[in-house]
Amino acid sequence: MATDAWVNETLYPGWGQRFRIRRELARVRSPFQDIMVFESESHGRVMLLDGVVQITEADEFIYQEMLTHVPLLAHGEAKRVLIIGAGDGGVLRRVLQHRGVERAVMVEIDSEVIRLAREHMPGIAGDAWNDPRAEVIIGDGIDYVRQAPAASFDAVIVDSTDPIGVGEVLFTEEFYANSARLLSARGLIVNQCGVPFMQAQELHDSSARRAKAFPDVWAYVAAVPTYVGGFMTLGWAAKDPAMRRLGAEEIRRRAATAGILGTTRYWTPEVHVAAFHLPPYIAEHLPRR
Amino acid sequence: MATDAWVNETLYPGWGQRFRIRRELARVRSPFQDIMVFESESHGRVMLLDGVVQITEADEFIYQEMLTHVPLLAHGEAKRVLIIGAGDGGVLRRVLQHRGVERAVMVEIDSEVIRLAREHMPGIAGDAWNDPRAEVIIGDGIDYVRQAPAASFDAVIVDSTDPIGVGEVLFTEEFYANSARLLSARGLIVNQCGVPFMQAQELHDSSARRAKAFPDVWAYVAAVPTYVGGFMTLGWAAKDPAMRRLGAEEIRRRAATAGILGTTRYWTPEVHVAAFHLPPYIAEHLPRR
Repeated sequence: MATDAWVNETLYPGWGQRFRIRRELARVRSPFQDIMVFESESHGRVMLLDGVVQITEADEFIYQEMLTHVPLLAHGEAKRVLIIGAGDGGVLRRVLQHRGVERAVMVEIDSEVIRLAREHMPGIAGDAWNDPRAEVIIGDGIDYVRQAPAASFDAVIVDSTDPIGVGEVLFTEEFYANSARLLSARGLIVNQCGVPFMQAQELHDSSARRAKAFPDVWAYVAAVPTYVGGFMTLGWAAKDPAMRRLGAEEIRRRAATAGILGTTRYWTPEVHVAAFHLPPYIAEHLPRR
Repeated sequence: MATDAWVNETLYPGWGQRFRIRRELARVRSPFQDIMVFESESHGRVMLLDGVVQITEADEFIYQEMLTHVPLLAHGEAKRVLIIGAGDGGVLRRVLQHRGVERAVMVEIDSEVIRLAREHMPGIAGDAWNDPRAEVIIGDGIDYVRQAPAASFDAVIVDSTDPIGVGEVLFTEEFYANSARLLSARGLIVNQCGVPFMQAQELHDSSARRAKAFPDVWAYVAAVPTYVGGFMTLGWAAKDPAMRRLGAEEIRRRAATAGILGTTRYWTPEVHVAAFHLPPYIAEHLPRR
């Protein structure tokens, strides 16, 4: 059944992962990027953008749970959530799991990512596309945050590519300043910040930029198998520094109210709290306060 | 400077990592295994055994710190430490950092691993080989634990290959029963248990075997970049269940006394405590108590 065809990830010049392909499902050159979806031997279906693995069916739960449940439960009363990127719909699905969420706006620049994810990886978003609380906009995140009214969202979740190519504008000072403006008084933003063992500069630079717009800047970690290189960091920028210092009992109580408890395979209240304790090799790249 | 030669890790049939080689330093067929050392473009020098990455200069600190400092500080008074495997000397070096350790016996089956590590990766063990508290034995760990007197060690650290080939005997009921016998009243053993995202059965089966010899069996996690696949689990089997429930303040106090505080790049008292909080996808493979 297996063939001898392999896909080599091209993110780093001298090291990377490779997947044996069972079957190529799609290969599209969109106006923004090269998109590939294939059936792997080991990880279910896999999507690559410009040669970099974005999501696999086998381990997407780790990234999605940590990128979504951590900010929403740390906030505790997030009703309006803005999602930038995340065209596969996995974050949208997790956001809509939270009973208290009244509105989730997702802004994805590349309609082809959504189309291919819906066609080839339908389990990732499930029914989220049809939820009446969801609004999906095809557009540029940098434009959306420029025009969004002040204090119109409680949380922003950025699920982007690395800060090269189409995702680069989502790591700029302008983007963070507008995010701070569109967030309510206790608002916060999280974003993927790469794998610091390989991409420490990305964490360092984007954290410094977030620190110009938010009083509390930090990161938390998740061990995502297909983002190879040890811990991935998820960037954290909040108006209220208390939000990342909650104990597991309070998080558990909120998760029960939100309907999240018992639905997860990576996130737990204890894993949530643990994720903010960074190894020194990671913490050294964050701004000193 | 870089060549186009790549080494593909062959641990899993359909997925894995690959390194671009700058220079091959050694390739030896020992009586036990195929050993390769090369200079990588991304991770410093790398050692493979039978095609599986064992250690790289760039990230060895993560695995060594977590495999050593966690059990020794959880115990708090470990004076006699038995190390099985770990021919590169990295665990030995970390064990000898602890001021309270009076004797460290290391039993490595393959003298070629030691020789090649000393020649090509000397920074990993540093001066540990010459420490008067260290005794290095070339021999089989299963034989050593069979013959060791009862209650002759306070902690056992197993740094082996996966339970295939030469490392297989270190995952057997007999090995764990003898480990329990040679350990003192508050003794404990830790061992590498693979990457559960890819090797869950290994964690499940070896945990069940440890549970026959020890009252408290669990695992803790470390995100080691070159053991690809998300969290690696380190198996935990102890005679005293309280040892893995200590808070960060007590661990910090012990680390200060031991001379460890401030010497680490991954381990901290908080990371230590956090490592025992397992994601459900990992915890589900451990014995239920």
